[in-house]
Amino acid sequence: MLSRKNETKESIIEAALYLFQIKGYHATSVRDISNRAGVNSATISYYFKGKNGLMEYCFTSFLEEYLQLIEKHLGTIQSSGPAECLKNLVKEILHFQRKNYLAAKFVYSEISFDSSLNREILSTYWTKEKFYLQSLMETGIQEGVFKNISLPIFILQLKGLLSAPLLHAQYSMEVLYQFPREEYFTMKYLQELYDFIDIYILDVPKEYPLAFAGKEVVL
Amino acid sequence: MLSRKNETKESIIEAALYLFQIKGYHATSVRDISNRAGVNSATISYYFKGKNGLMEYCFTSFLEEYLQLIEKHLGTIQSSGPAECLKNLVKEILHFQRKNYLAAKFVYSEISFDSSLNREILSTYWTKEKFYLQSLMETGIQEGVFKNISLPIFILQLKGLLSAPLLHAQYSMEVLYQFPREEYFTMKYLQELYDFIDIYILDVPKEYPLAFAGKEVVL
Repeated sequence: MLSRKNETKESIIEAALYLFQIKGYHATSVRDISNRAGVNSATISYYFKGKNGLMEYCFTSFLEEYLQLIEKHLGTIQSSGPAECLKNLVKEILHFQRKNYLAAKFVYSEISFDSSLNREILSTYWTKEKFYLQSLMETGIQEGVFKNISLPIFILQLKGLLSAPLLHAQYSMEVLYQFPREEYFTMKYLQELYDFIDIYILDVPKEYPLAFAGKEVVL
Repeated sequence: MLSRKNETKESIIEAALYLFQIKGYHATSVRDISNRAGVNSATISYYFKGKNGLMEYCFTSFLEEYLQLIEKHLGTIQSSGPAECLKNLVKEILHFQRKNYLAAKFVYSEISFDSSLNREILSTYWTKEKFYLQSLMETGIQEGVFKNISLPIFILQLKGLLSAPLLHAQYSMEVLYQFPREEYFTMKYLQELYDFIDIYILDVPKEYPLAFAGKEVVL
């Protein structure tokens, strides 16, 4: 159970992320957030030292948890092998993004700007993430399980595929009638990412792509 | 050659897109834009009726040209067949995005918000785009050239891949050392998208993926 202090912090963050998604970060004022969260503006200053601090808190708490998730799954590479490890990782990331939908959407849309906070975050969190992904991919290539692909381009493609349901969320919902917050969508999308990995990275026989869908790949 | 009127408009748009990319749309004032463009604030009001009008102009001029490009290439489906048509389209879109880099980045990052302008644009431009992409894919499936994939998910994946160099631009440059504005990057990335289409959509024999790379696919 959350303590009252954590409850207040959570309600401020929830209100902020909701408003950022509608109006964008810059157009949202501390007063907007305090009104929606039902707290005093001073409470926001007390917990987060203003809007900038609140933004930093959203970024770092999301990214810390995200990196922990990657670290944890990379620990299983010895027991499960690189193919299953990559698939499990993709699955965990999609579920994590769905669970933290508004935070993920906020983080991904803000990091496209060329700001100093972003540069700081890029040089710490994202460099770490890249290091982990690269180690996983290199292990798979060395073991002859993955095809010998261009790693920076693959990482960019993978990030494009993983973030598409967040960054093209309005498009998904209003044009494609796909709902990224629904579990059903996440499962369907995950299946496609598995196929992408099977066909594009692994040497799964092309004649039987469906036989492998959703199953653990034995290599 | 641009007339003086168009030169002024262009310089205002250039200044605005530059500032939006650094500070974001909401944090950029009309005064910032007029200072950078070296024009009077009144000139911005005269041509665009303020910042909102300027934003709408950036959106619609980018999207009109983008849709014309898609329409034009869809006209070649009879002569070139769906596979070459899809590949040419992907190539044209990547080059168009590189040529209009800041505008593309701005449009893609703004449309992740749930605003009324976005809803209007989604219901017109993006619905049209989806209609075109869907027709192309359905033709390919009917002719037995494309695999029978889930179209909404494929369109979302394709959009994720096409927009990754824009939406993860800072990440590409500072973490992966890939530079999305360079022609060399675009060519390398295009090659990967061709491979993705070959392996994932077309039934190109898997034993010879490299034989097809960069060539027209004869089916």
